[in-house]
Amino acid sequence: MSGLEFWFDFASTYSYLSAVRLAERKDVAWRAFLLGPIFSEIHGSSDSPFNRNPKRGSYMWIDVAREAKALGQPFRVPSAFPRGSLLATRIAFLAEGEPWIGPFVRAIFEANFVYDLDIGDEMVVTAVLRAFTPEAERFVARAKEPAIKALLFERTREASARGIFGAPTFFAKGELYWGNDRLDAADRALRGEHPGRAEQNREC
Amino acid sequence: MSGLEFWFDFASTYSYLSAVRLAERKDVAWRAFLLGPIFSEIHGSSDSPFNRNPKRGSYMWIDVAREAKALGQPFRVPSAFPRGSLLATRIAFLAEGEPWIGPFVRAIFEANFVYDLDIGDEMVVTAVLRAFTPEAERFVARAKEPAIKALLFERTREASARGIFGAPTFFAKGELYWGNDRLDAADRALRGEHPGRAEQNREC
Repeated sequence: MSGLEFWFDFASTYSYLSAVRLAERKDVAWRAFLLGPIFSEIHGSSDSPFNRNPKRGSYMWIDVAREAKALGQPFRVPSAFPRGSLLATRIAFLAEGEPWIGPFVRAIFEANFVYDLDIGDEMVVTAVLRAFTPEAERFVARAKEPAIKALLFERTREASARGIFGAPTFFAKGELYWGNDRLDAADRALRGEHPGRAEQNREC
Repeated sequence: MSGLEFWFDFASTYSYLSAVRLAERKDVAWRAFLLGPIFSEIHGSSDSPFNRNPKRGSYMWIDVAREAKALGQPFRVPSAFPRGSLLATRIAFLAEGEPWIGPFVRAIFEANFVYDLDIGDEMVVTAVLRAFTPEAERFVARAKEPAIKALLFERTREASARGIFGAPTFFAKGELYWGNDRLDAADRALRGEHPGRAEQNREC
């Protein structure tokens, strides 16, 4: 179990694509974290690099739309970016051991990047959560406790200590892989294959 | 002819990988340019983002080594990065119409990223060039003329005007694709297929 660690941030568009691809898998350890503090540490700003670099940002939206279409997955440019997702992140953190963690994370991403809902809003998060557990209100209440805030802070420190500088990030057999484009490589590494892009040598 | 435009910078590790993949193709328009002025415009520094962000930088070297291995292509972390490549860039600019442009560009990249030679050194560049043309000295002399400097400056302005923010960048059917990871997508677009990653839907 848990061959693949998947580190994601709910504001990250490429994390959305990876969450869609991984939602139903049973061998994934889901790791919610906050990219903002890591961006602050690296760039001196917690804002998205896509906002700080408008050309790269414009391209990102085109690229994510292309990639989503290739996955057969709907995608809409949200009316606000990045959206605050502290509560959703804390709930995902609390729910990492639940059997519905994958579909729940995907549903939060879809609320943001398909339905353009404010995932910073407690009502939105609670409504999504109710589809997965009868204990939605209990999860929301626990997520607000200072102890959970401290644990999520610790999680983000762990991300930084392990070399994470963006999202999504995967760990496979102790090695870091960055970006939705490297999910296949991480999976190949898990299977003991060379992580490079096998399709270049593949005859179909 | 020239279905695919390939914009590259000799200091760019991912441009190296793309140059290796494209060197022998006949349908490529090679576009040498300088990323430094574009980085200055965007980031306020002409240094590589990989140097300005050490975590991302360390990961890049691991990632490029993995990708090179998957291509069956040698790769060595150079002892200096990024290397000055103004003369080599001007020569590539002058040679874009030559039948040996692809193999020449690949050879300059290999001098840097396989043999760890200083591609900023005129002797290194001239030696590489001699393998492709008996007029190596004439190319080097022309590359130093102010008119060529002005034309390369214009080229870099064109890159910026067309939305380029990094390298490698491809244009296929008027659309921009950024990064070695999107060369396959650009090629699919050229063939009139959806540019998204086809391997996800492919049965082998």
